[in-house]
Amino acid sequence: MLSIILNNPQMGENIGAAARSMQNFGLDDLRLVKPRDGWPNPRAEATSSGALERMQVRVFDTLAEAIADLHFTFATTVRPRDMIKPIFTPESAAIEGHKKIKQDQNVGIVFGAERSGLDNDDISQCQAILSIPTNPDFSSLNLGQAVLLMAYEWMRVQDEETQTEPPALDLGDSFPARQDDVHQFIKRLEDELEERKFFRAKDLKPTMLVNIQNLFTRADISDQELRTLHGILSALRGNKTDNKTPK
Amino acid sequence: MLSIILNNPQMGENIGAAARSMQNFGLDDLRLVKPRDGWPNPRAEATSSGALERMQVRVFDTLAEAIADLHFTFATTVRPRDMIKPIFTPESAAIEGHKKIKQDQNVGIVFGAERSGLDNDDISQCQAILSIPTNPDFSSLNLGQAVLLMAYEWMRVQDEETQTEPPALDLGDSFPARQDDVHQFIKRLEDELEERKFFRAKDLKPTMLVNIQNLFTRADISDQELRTLHGILSALRGNKTDNKTPK
Repeated sequence: MLSIILNNPQMGENIGAAARSMQNFGLDDLRLVKPRDGWPNPRAEATSSGALERMQVRVFDTLAEAIADLHFTFATTVRPRDMIKPIFTPESAAIEGHKKIKQDQNVGIVFGAERSGLDNDDISQCQAILSIPTNPDFSSLNLGQAVLLMAYEWMRVQDEETQTEPPALDLGDSFPARQDDVHQFIKRLEDELEERKFFRAKDLKPTMLVNIQNLFTRADISDQELRTLHGILSALRGNKTDNKTPK
Repeated sequence: MLSIILNNPQMGENIGAAARSMQNFGLDDLRLVKPRDGWPNPRAEATSSGALERMQVRVFDTLAEAIADLHFTFATTVRPRDMIKPIFTPESAAIEGHKKIKQDQNVGIVFGAERSGLDNDDISQCQAILSIPTNPDFSSLNLGQAVLLMAYEWMRVQDEETQTEPPALDLGDSFPARQDDVHQFIKRLEDELEERKFFRAKDLKPTMLVNIQNLFTRADISDQELRTLHGILSALRGNKTDNKTPK
């Protein structure tokens, strides 16, 4: 299943337009993170032409909660960032996403607020960047249009039966970790590091956390590997080593 | 050159949105056949975000005049008609169109009015039908969205050679770590873990080491990130934390 996540959307019209585009191309899972004007939103309903009533719409307080049950998320952004993440086009993202869904993974595409887009912390929570190539001299895609293009590509790639499939990541018997489990590990690592006075320069802490987050989200960690990482962390901090996930 | 022809467009907003989408994807030739509210149209200008000023816009009295200098035109329609014409998808139309343009042909895509679309006479003036596949239970693409999808496909097909390459990892200012440096880190981690009695079951140690190695090689670690990992390791084992690579 593909989920569309709108992070802090401002205008109801754009939420409605996104819902309409999703329905046009057969998508039904919409997640809203703190929509500015609350929810439900009459303007969104009017613009959606009935699409909102036909789909699942959920509202979350944070992006982390909105993507908690997903295994792989794309952060949609036009601006190049100092982040080491794979960059996908709409087409390659759709191909990659369908492949993951065939492996029973839950996939999401995250879109930022109308003016500000996604910030570095938002992006660092995602596994990959999705960038829609436009004319560099005139780039004015709005939120609804960006969702439309991705929904269109999603259906087009699905319909295209002549894909040559790039090699999938062979995870053996294990399964990709859920995002909330990855975040739990990162949080635990952060707490341990805090305790050990790792973040001496307080102003550098946010940047370092983003770097650490990027590193572990990029690795497509499996649930088994996450248990190994927890075991390593326990061993290094001098706990009784039991190679099990601490709860 | 690809021309976009809007036949009897009703709302200025849609003309402006079409112009914006065209500019977003590098198209500059817009032709209007009898726009309902005349031309120029202040609403179209407002919606276009400056796109109209950047492109050639011409107004014609009839579709025949608007497509007079073109060699091949697609009629965009969602409804199947009793017409024996080749039917293209957005993608196959873009492929076919680019091929004809390379042969110095002028190609056009014709869009009908908002509610009524193109009538049989309009369609009969075109060489082929272009149909955008949508969810049969919910099909509500408007004029601006239809132009957006075609403009996007036009650019995507044009860029295809570069897009079929696997997605690149944007390393920003930093550089991928050398493999020997990655191995040095993994060896250091192994030694620390050995010291902490992490590998209690000796026969499982080789497998665990392979897993750890996979995890860190898969992440395409940069040299900067490797320094961060060394710093984390030093902090966790209780060394003086200096965030620098130990030698």
